[in-house]
Amino acid sequence: MMAIAGGVTAPKGYRAAGVAVGIKPNSAKLDCALVVSDVPSIVAGVFTTNVMKAPCIAWNQQVCARGMAQAAFINSGNANAATGDRGLADVKATAALVAAGLNLAPDRVCVCSTGVIGVPLPMDRIGNGVRGCLESLSPTGGGDAARAIMTTDLVPKERAVEMPLSWGKARLGAIAKGSGMIAPNMATMICVITTDVSVAAGPLRDALRKAVDASFNRICVDNDMSTSDAVLCFANGQAGGGALAPGTEDYETFSAALTGLCRDLAQDLVRDGEGATKFVEIAVSGADTNENAQKTARAIATSALCKTAFFGQDPNWGRIACAAGYSGVAFDPAKLSIWIEDIQLMRDGAAAAFVEAEAAACMQRPAFRIRVSLGDGPGEATYWTCDLSHDYVAINADYRT
Amino acid sequence: MMAIAGGVTAPKGYRAAGVAVGIKPNSAKLDCALVVSDVPSIVAGVFTTNVMKAPCIAWNQQVCARGMAQAAFINSGNANAATGDRGLADVKATAALVAAGLNLAPDRVCVCSTGVIGVPLPMDRIGNGVRGCLESLSPTGGGDAARAIMTTDLVPKERAVEMPLSWGKARLGAIAKGSGMIAPNMATMICVITTDVSVAAGPLRDALRKAVDASFNRICVDNDMSTSDAVLCFANGQAGGGALAPGTEDYETFSAALTGLCRDLAQDLVRDGEGATKFVEIAVSGADTNENAQKTARAIATSALCKTAFFGQDPNWGRIACAAGYSGVAFDPAKLSIWIEDIQLMRDGAAAAFVEAEAAACMQRPAFRIRVSLGDGPGEATYWTCDLSHDYVAINADYRT
Repeated sequence: MMAIAGGVTAPKGYRAAGVAVGIKPNSAKLDCALVVSDVPSIVAGVFTTNVMKAPCIAWNQQVCARGMAQAAFINSGNANAATGDRGLADVKATAALVAAGLNLAPDRVCVCSTGVIGVPLPMDRIGNGVRGCLESLSPTGGGDAARAIMTTDLVPKERAVEMPLSWGKARLGAIAKGSGMIAPNMATMICVITTDVSVAAGPLRDALRKAVDASFNRICVDNDMSTSDAVLCFANGQAGGGALAPGTEDYETFSAALTGLCRDLAQDLVRDGEGATKFVEIAVSGADTNENAQKTARAIATSALCKTAFFGQDPNWGRIACAAGYSGVAFDPAKLSIWIEDIQLMRDGAAAAFVEAEAAACMQRPAFRIRVSLGDGPGEATYWTCDLSHDYVAINADYRT
Repeated sequence: MMAIAGGVTAPKGYRAAGVAVGIKPNSAKLDCALVVSDVPSIVAGVFTTNVMKAPCIAWNQQVCARGMAQAAFINSGNANAATGDRGLADVKATAALVAAGLNLAPDRVCVCSTGVIGVPLPMDRIGNGVRGCLESLSPTGGGDAARAIMTTDLVPKERAVEMPLSWGKARLGAIAKGSGMIAPNMATMICVITTDVSVAAGPLRDALRKAVDASFNRICVDNDMSTSDAVLCFANGQAGGGALAPGTEDYETFSAALTGLCRDLAQDLVRDGEGATKFVEIAVSGADTNENAQKTARAIATSALCKTAFFGQDPNWGRIACAAGYSGVAFDPAKLSIWIEDIQLMRDGAAAAFVEAEAAACMQRPAFRIRVSLGDGPGEATYWTCDLSHDYVAINADYRT
């Protein structure tokens, strides 16, 4: 597996674009993106489970249920969520505009929106965005597309890798945006993945679900889940080679590469989390099951008190122990141990002998690792989180006003 | 029901004290409290469900299981949590010191500790605290006791009421402390309630459980649950009258008064939440069951994004709708409506027509009410929460250092 440049346009047979049409308050910022496969493509998606789904989620679920698509249009600046019947009509109109420009059926077009909730889409500007993107589609347009889907993200996120398969090389590419994870009023996490392998819809869906479970479902900036979270994956077969069949080495290589790509992007989202100054890995082991290790890791990763301690660079292991204690997982407190990097803070349920300044020094780094052992079970899990800083409060107190 | 002065010493036959012995860094601050009934008393308790329970919790659970006690000693500044075997030995030693001074059996003494986790109790100072409290016990000592249990609380919390029963008047009093709700490193919520009615242990336990469910279990400052949360209720019978029997009007009056007292104290905790600048009532109706209304109210009350919007005085109903959407409760998004005070922000799943400035003006007040209707079911619930402010981050990032 080798990291390469090009993001979502790195695989063969994809073009992309990003343009600015004034949907964002700052009219110079790119706010419409289009990703297009040159040929009809298999598509799979994973979506938010929020009851208040944006209408584009229902639309994309239908497209992905059929398993074929050729384009994804994304606007930032407006989430088109909680917009009533008009919301779904606007999704259909957007898909129709893109489809007309590409000479496709509308049901081959995915539509994503991210931004403020509850405000109808400005369809005149969306129209300008579709036209602008169609005019500027380019096999090197991945970078513009990555910038066009940002909201409070400080940096664009794109990744691409080349993977060696039995018959030659193929590629995976992606763009993603966070960054309040998962921030409902900037409804929110969107990732568009492209690959030039050939793979049927079912196996693509399985590989994507597995990748998302090990990546985007293991991160936390805040604990809110957006109305618009969507991960789309296109597979257009343009690299050549036969369809990747489950159980083959090539399929496993692809699946592992997809998981790795998603994990890299998920970590990029955390690093660029709203107000984040620290990237923190929470590794839990010794649980009875992996599921219980996940529950424990999640409780620590989402605790406001742990996250403020990370911000304060305070090796306050009591907060970590406490979050483990209320995670809903039963364990023997007398077996609980906690480390920061290689420094043991808690041993068998009580304070370990450690030098406070050395532990604090670990936390002054931009990234560090907390390890928690619940005992002697085989279950383990890793989460990635960031700190809760003054800037998180500032960003989210003042977002709309 | 009439509010009266005197706090935990308002009911007949109780004395209390608070002294400073240097357990807190600022040695002038009161840090040991003692509440004593003049006669043996029925006692009931409700405790944290955190796996990492402080050893005093296990001790108090045993005392409350027997149902008789005569004193509660509380220190602030040190939680005696995650302190291993020594922690429990220190609890027993503390109970023994108090018991010796009062000529009681040690198992008639409840012990609570609140403060930093993971540091052994300074038993020499605890000894001074016990002696100091014994010397200064007074029938007007409730106020000192209320101050002595504070950690990051900005104001002491005490309440008392007089209730009319069939045979005359009786009283309820209490002291409580928050204020990171529930902040594990200042392990945390403690409430000691006294009453001079006569009531058996079982009915007292039932009434206390009901009161806590409708009060301390309906509030949120942060979403962490401490290792040391404890609510104790003493009933010494010194007002005269027979034992209150379940099903009688007197018992119902007592139970309602206890619930009201706890609700007032719970709201006091939220008002004094760490960094809180807003007191927000979240009232959910129209759910299929009360339990689902509670789940929805809790999701909104604990959402970092809703709480930062409260701080920012931003009538961002999209965040409220979104939190309702991920609460785990199924509802029809097209029936969701949201109000702030009497201004409707969302109607049937989409934006209502409202004047933004008027809604924002509601949020400039120190207290306001959010109403959420999920549809046409009979289920309803109310939570109380505060905002997430810069000061919350500052308090919790810098607490130990």
